[in-house]
Amino acid sequence: MSIAILGYGVVGSGAYEILTKAGYKVSRVLDVRSYPELGSTLTYDIEDILNDKEITVVAEAIGGNTFSYDFVSRALKAGKHVVSSNKHLICSYYKELHALAKENGVTLRFTASAGGGIPWLYNLKRGKLCDRIEKVMGIMNGTTNYILDAMIHDSRDFSDVLKEAQQLGYAEANPSADIDGFDVARKTAISSSIAFDAVVSENDVMVFGLRNIKKGDIDYISEHCGKTVRYLGYGVRTENGVAAFVEPTLLPIDALEANVRTNNNMISLFGEYVGRLSFYGQGAGKYPTGNALAQDIINILQGDTALTFSETDAVICNEEVKRSYFIRTDAAVKLDFEASSEMIGETRYIFTETVSVAQMHDIAEKILAEDPESFFAGMEAE
Amino acid sequence: MSIAILGYGVVGSGAYEILTKAGYKVSRVLDVRSYPELGSTLTYDIEDILNDKEITVVAEAIGGNTFSYDFVSRALKAGKHVVSSNKHLICSYYKELHALAKENGVTLRFTASAGGGIPWLYNLKRGKLCDRIEKVMGIMNGTTNYILDAMIHDSRDFSDVLKEAQQLGYAEANPSADIDGFDVARKTAISSSIAFDAVVSENDVMVFGLRNIKKGDIDYISEHCGKTVRYLGYGVRTENGVAAFVEPTLLPIDALEANVRTNNNMISLFGEYVGRLSFYGQGAGKYPTGNALAQDIINILQGDTALTFSETDAVICNEEVKRSYFIRTDAAVKLDFEASSEMIGETRYIFTETVSVAQMHDIAEKILAEDPESFFAGMEAE
Repeated sequence: MSIAILGYGVVGSGAYEILTKAGYKVSRVLDVRSYPELGSTLTYDIEDILNDKEITVVAEAIGGNTFSYDFVSRALKAGKHVVSSNKHLICSYYKELHALAKENGVTLRFTASAGGGIPWLYNLKRGKLCDRIEKVMGIMNGTTNYILDAMIHDSRDFSDVLKEAQQLGYAEANPSADIDGFDVARKTAISSSIAFDAVVSENDVMVFGLRNIKKGDIDYISEHCGKTVRYLGYGVRTENGVAAFVEPTLLPIDALEANVRTNNNMISLFGEYVGRLSFYGQGAGKYPTGNALAQDIINILQGDTALTFSETDAVICNEEVKRSYFIRTDAAVKLDFEASSEMIGETRYIFTETVSVAQMHDIAEKILAEDPESFFAGMEAE
Repeated sequence: MSIAILGYGVVGSGAYEILTKAGYKVSRVLDVRSYPELGSTLTYDIEDILNDKEITVVAEAIGGNTFSYDFVSRALKAGKHVVSSNKHLICSYYKELHALAKENGVTLRFTASAGGGIPWLYNLKRGKLCDRIEKVMGIMNGTTNYILDAMIHDSRDFSDVLKEAQQLGYAEANPSADIDGFDVARKTAISSSIAFDAVVSENDVMVFGLRNIKKGDIDYISEHCGKTVRYLGYGVRTENGVAAFVEPTLLPIDALEANVRTNNNMISLFGEYVGRLSFYGQGAGKYPTGNALAQDIINILQGDTALTFSETDAVICNEEVKRSYFIRTDAAVKLDFEASSEMIGETRYIFTETVSVAQMHDIAEKILAEDPESFFAGMEAE
């Protein structure tokens, strides 16, 4: 019995170190780059792994969904268990990969793909054993929390902190997935799929990005209602289905999320029996995510079950969740619902009455067409 | 395959409801009281359970360590898996019960015994799979957190809040186990045993109670160093062994623990790879603890492994952890180490330099002999 790791980047090398130190045999690492320290363990050819009968588990840490999809599906067909840290892959191909795993009598796990270090999905799955999950919610992205935290506590500007985060390696050269919310949307989709046992796809998730937030917004919110801001993903069980959305969100300053500092994550489930359970820690990074991959592997070797959800598509009902919103815009807005607003110079600061998530995101599109710098945030009910 | 539950009190009835609703068969419930609604499921005779071949798992929710010890050891001998929510039992008889389980090829689990609802021990065990735990720490007792939270946020007195907590059923008629720290000491002992893979017994844990805290202490601490107080259990890996202690602790007001409200728990592990992971929620209560019992049962039925730790006794090194302390006392104290103090009336308020846990608890005994109302709190390093 031995393990193969696909991708020797940040996560793959973390998993390699953790597994070998714990006494597990990693007999193959696949990458396109050269790593002399890996010696003959390194291979450029997936066939070396697929044809090796001794390898029973393959850990995918390549990212993206082209090579990873090809390799993972071939590994499953070759009768190997697969663990993956790749939210993009799982979001795009869950149904296919799950079916392949079933066909071939192997296990597919992806605890590392969302809040891996915490470990979130593992606990969400366990929480479902004998409880009904009503909601999942939380800080799922370290980069945007790092940016918000620095803006709030050090009174800095968005672009300034983003640049620093890029230098520190917390943010990508192209930060769009983080600051435009795709990363959180994928994690929200996977979390909601597990929580509500139906496929929520990335495109079902309504997203307000964080990109447009200004120091002035944070100051205004603090002065006008004594609240602070966090960037949250939400999956909610509604009367007729599921609502899923990602929004900058106004929170009381003594909310647990409001006290999550730097690049940490905090994700919560709300169960009928257990109430609110929250999981806090480094959601991502070399060792936290590497550790989540390693734990998934060890769990499989111990005979633990797969991370699965029903293949039925969820009924998306974003019109069934209502909340209040904060809007800052230079656009001349007409809202179909009640709101209080204040004009400062050319800029309008608006607090709305409750309105559905679907309606608000609809209107936001029109407002953004007129003022692309507009900022939107939901308000957490107290 | 069916389940028996020992004890139909708060926890046992919660587990019963959750398991039956989830479709599991609970064929026997043992209690000394009468529950007509249970019909013929109720029994007063443990033999009915021991001799029933269909029953494969026994859930113990009696509490204490007399009947529970007798019944659990006989159930293990009869070849039945056992799950328990009973920290007292596990603290007193872990070695024996673990040996019995091994001998009889069955599984003993006790996730519900400490931070059950969170679920803490389960995650601690999983966290250990391929990481080295350096420290466990947290709010492990809902009653004392409820009292502190009300004292801090509603400026109320200890005795007043305690009385209310008793009326609400959050505190026992005899609240000693909570406010004198035995409950947290047991949870700290079990958590440390799992974290460091060696038996830490209840008596190894050095304890400062919460009983002596006054509203004036909280005000003084807030005014003099801008901090707040929480009641925390600690297990720490030291150079030569393990330190374990329970102390009221001064924390920055934006610490996560400082924002844990009412009777919630938050327990954290600090791993070499994963860093700090925290688990938050209702630590105890009918449904949270009942749910933890139910999850443990389902995990066993799915073939998951036991919650175990090495039977070797831990080397207790409470002299190897140093921290600063706050002391409020009317005793005429002479300290062997540096401290700044202020006298208000007859009362001395002291902030010490760092001193070992062992030394401080030693001195505290002498101070308490002179002024039994003295209050001690450790200070969390920033």
